[in-house]
Amino acid sequence: EDVGARFEAYGWHVQHVDDGNDLAAIEAACEAAQQETSRPSLIVLRTVIGNPAPNKEGTAEAHGSPLGADEVRLTKQILGWDPDSKFLVPEEALTDCRHAIERGAALEAAWHDLRTRYTEAYPEAAAEFDAWLEGKLPDGWTNALPSFPIDKPIATRQASEKVLNALAPLMPNLIGGSADLAGSTGTQIKGAKNFEPEEVGRNFHWGVREHGMTAALNGMAAHGGVRPYGSTFLVFSDYAKPSLRLAAIQSLPIVFIGTHDSIGLGEDGPTHQPIEQMAMLRAMPNLMLMRPADAAETVEAWHAILEHKTGPVVLVLTRQKLPVFDRSRYAAAEGARRGAYILSEPEGGPQAILIATGSEVQVALAAADLLMKEGIRARVVSMPCWELFEQQPEAYRDQVLPPEITARVSIEAAATFGWRRWVGDAGAILGIDHFGASAPAARLFKEFQFTPEHAAELVRQVLEGAKS
Amino acid sequence: EDVGARFEAYGWHVQHVDDGNDLAAIEAACEAAQQETSRPSLIVLRTVIGNPAPNKEGTAEAHGSPLGADEVRLTKQILGWDPDSKFLVPEEALTDCRHAIERGAALEAAWHDLRTRYTEAYPEAAAEFDAWLEGKLPDGWTNALPSFPIDKPIATRQASEKVLNALAPLMPNLIGGSADLAGSTGTQIKGAKNFEPEEVGRNFHWGVREHGMTAALNGMAAHGGVRPYGSTFLVFSDYAKPSLRLAAIQSLPIVFIGTHDSIGLGEDGPTHQPIEQMAMLRAMPNLMLMRPADAAETVEAWHAILEHKTGPVVLVLTRQKLPVFDRSRYAAAEGARRGAYILSEPEGGPQAILIATGSEVQVALAAADLLMKEGIRARVVSMPCWELFEQQPEAYRDQVLPPEITARVSIEAAATFGWRRWVGDAGAILGIDHFGASAPAARLFKEFQFTPEHAAELVRQVLEGAKS
Repeated sequence: EDVGARFEAYGWHVQHVDDGNDLAAIEAACEAAQQETSRPSLIVLRTVIGNPAPNKEGTAEAHGSPLGADEVRLTKQILGWDPDSKFLVPEEALTDCRHAIERGAALEAAWHDLRTRYTEAYPEAAAEFDAWLEGKLPDGWTNALPSFPIDKPIATRQASEKVLNALAPLMPNLIGGSADLAGSTGTQIKGAKNFEPEEVGRNFHWGVREHGMTAALNGMAAHGGVRPYGSTFLVFSDYAKPSLRLAAIQSLPIVFIGTHDSIGLGEDGPTHQPIEQMAMLRAMPNLMLMRPADAAETVEAWHAILEHKTGPVVLVLTRQKLPVFDRSRYAAAEGARRGAYILSEPEGGPQAILIATGSEVQVALAAADLLMKEGIRARVVSMPCWELFEQQPEAYRDQVLPPEITARVSIEAAATFGWRRWVGDAGAILGIDHFGASAPAARLFKEFQFTPEHAAELVRQVLEGAKS
Repeated sequence: EDVGARFEAYGWHVQHVDDGNDLAAIEAACEAAQQETSRPSLIVLRTVIGNPAPNKEGTAEAHGSPLGADEVRLTKQILGWDPDSKFLVPEEALTDCRHAIERGAALEAAWHDLRTRYTEAYPEAAAEFDAWLEGKLPDGWTNALPSFPIDKPIATRQASEKVLNALAPLMPNLIGGSADLAGSTGTQIKGAKNFEPEEVGRNFHWGVREHGMTAALNGMAAHGGVRPYGSTFLVFSDYAKPSLRLAAIQSLPIVFIGTHDSIGLGEDGPTHQPIEQMAMLRAMPNLMLMRPADAAETVEAWHAILEHKTGPVVLVLTRQKLPVFDRSRYAAAEGARRGAYILSEPEGGPQAILIATGSEVQVALAAADLLMKEGIRARVVSMPCWELFEQQPEAYRDQVLPPEITARVSIEAAATFGWRRWVGDAGAILGIDHFGASAPAARLFKEFQFTPEHAAELVRQVLEGAKS
């Protein structure tokens, strides 16, 4: 493959330095790259691996393992260094590195001077700049969060879009977009400009490249100041997995929005229907996954996300409309910020617990209603975020999931993998451990038994099991 | 991005057809592509989305949702079709499709004729060809499998290399390679040629492109006849996840070899050390993951893999050397083919069970020995493959993991995610839920507590818990 030609095809500025040891040529290429401000730059350096080790240069042996004592001696001789030295830093390198201290100090002083002059000239802009770099949220940001009427079903992706657009005027540093799915994932800031070569707007269009998008989010977060988000269908998080992992390793607070989050996306079928993606993401260290159950929980999810600054968050949203729960009947959505909370409590206290996430919480509520009619008292726990729930004090966790209530049923239209942890040995897991199918969402939920009737039957079974 | 130029940079044969409705130009390009036998071909067709729908052509609206009744009417009018037709197949298309039956029958007859003549001319080669297409394994293949001396520790990646090379002469259709890591993953067939433009050998060098490699394996498996394998470090299965999923959806029996399977790879550090990858893969429907504990289990893993024909297998192997268990003291490695088996049984029957996979099985055996010295009787179960174990009859599963023995400890140097299922509420999981570190393997296993002493302490704790 001709790497230079490939990057030219991407629209990059490409330079070639044929001798990778020609320092003057490298410096010239770096300077030319700095002059180029409208495109990213690639400098193709040609070097020989292991040069000048006489027996190993140009071979794979010089890559994966140490050269070995003999080859090190020979290499030092070729370089004119003392072959018997155990730890050698050539004088030339040492001198240059020592000078780096004063060079760095001068650059730092110049920077502070610039900052001081900027702060004097533009006190408000400077204060905002500082707040951004410190990761402070603007005053009153929570007041800007929208609320949603209970009589209008709305997809959580659409609720999220409203949250994003409500926060946008207060948070000019909240910037992002999608991997060619802006209309579907609800990630356009209305009235804002696109980020394009001629125009530095806040709406980003990354094209069908989830990995590149997420790598770009990582770079933006590593730079700091901005709060970057990207989006695509949840199933395509597969393509972003490697860069999500780098975000987690580096504690970068990027927001990855994955919509069309289950078989509920319907007709596009198995290639587009996530099954194992949430397990894949929950298994990753230092990654937080949130799957809100309705519009109100979506607001709380954004609340939690913006306050989370130590790693990536994946926000998992539906394509299909969901009811907005009547919070005068059920608990306040705020509980979502603790990862899991008691959404509905039966009079007389629970015999069983239904635990659900996202679009399946409505199924759990309906199942609890069915059970109540036959005198079976089931609590419903909405659990949008395992990771936040794990961080709660034990007393809170035991309050939501009392150890003595072992009759538990989880409902999530995704792989059952990992759920045994929450339902325990005596519990049942309602999930889907095969690929989906192409059909309207309602039909799929019925075929794959994500129904109140089936959930209620599982509760009866685990109660039966607990008795025996 | 200039897609044509990008594929030219990859070395592809690229043609452009500017009018995607110019059927003659398309046919000519297809014929030119068929003439080109040394490189893959790309034909860049330029079309307008939704053409000729008058209000929606060239817009995103023509992509994700139906045109709608009015636009369908207008489009039909433009095409000269009856706008009131509910289901219309133009006569021209119908006639051509009807002719496809006889065209296909003629092609099929010609093919069968060719096959018959080939079988008469080359009966042995034809028999082999048929056996390959039917997925039959050669007679006596199991006799060719190597065995390993117990006094010579060997990495499972190296054991796997020996298995592959032992099978190679019997199975010329066992072909594959690596994503730029052939030396490290042990996937070179010795003495065989490379697959190159001028030479159709059996060793493939895919370069650093795990996704492309796995997509190629899928294509080879979909074609049939060959048994393709690819390899890289296990952590880079992240890059292959999307194409592994397509293998699973399509039930393609590819073999994906992931070596350097834990913190045990040592110095390369957290970016190279898998943590959550096995959970990610185990959560996927119709994918089988095998992590053998020693050289003998590696042989059994290959045995199981070659007999598995309905989906992808990921074979997970160590970088570091492992002891070869003394099977006169422990159970035969054959049990690995049932997914999990009792490797070591204490006299007097078990009070507790240690369940481990791969390189941690030796830790479990050593922990059981420690415990035995204090009179605690622990069974050791080696569990190289969850999926195969799940498929065993309940009686076998209950024999290996008797429900009444709730004092269980799992040991796997990977994310704990999913393990609760096997250890139950009363058990303990020894795993690693954070990223790794750069250090020699032995140091990391000690720092992260994958030691016989710590495993034994966890067994004591779960036994204590069971009592209380």
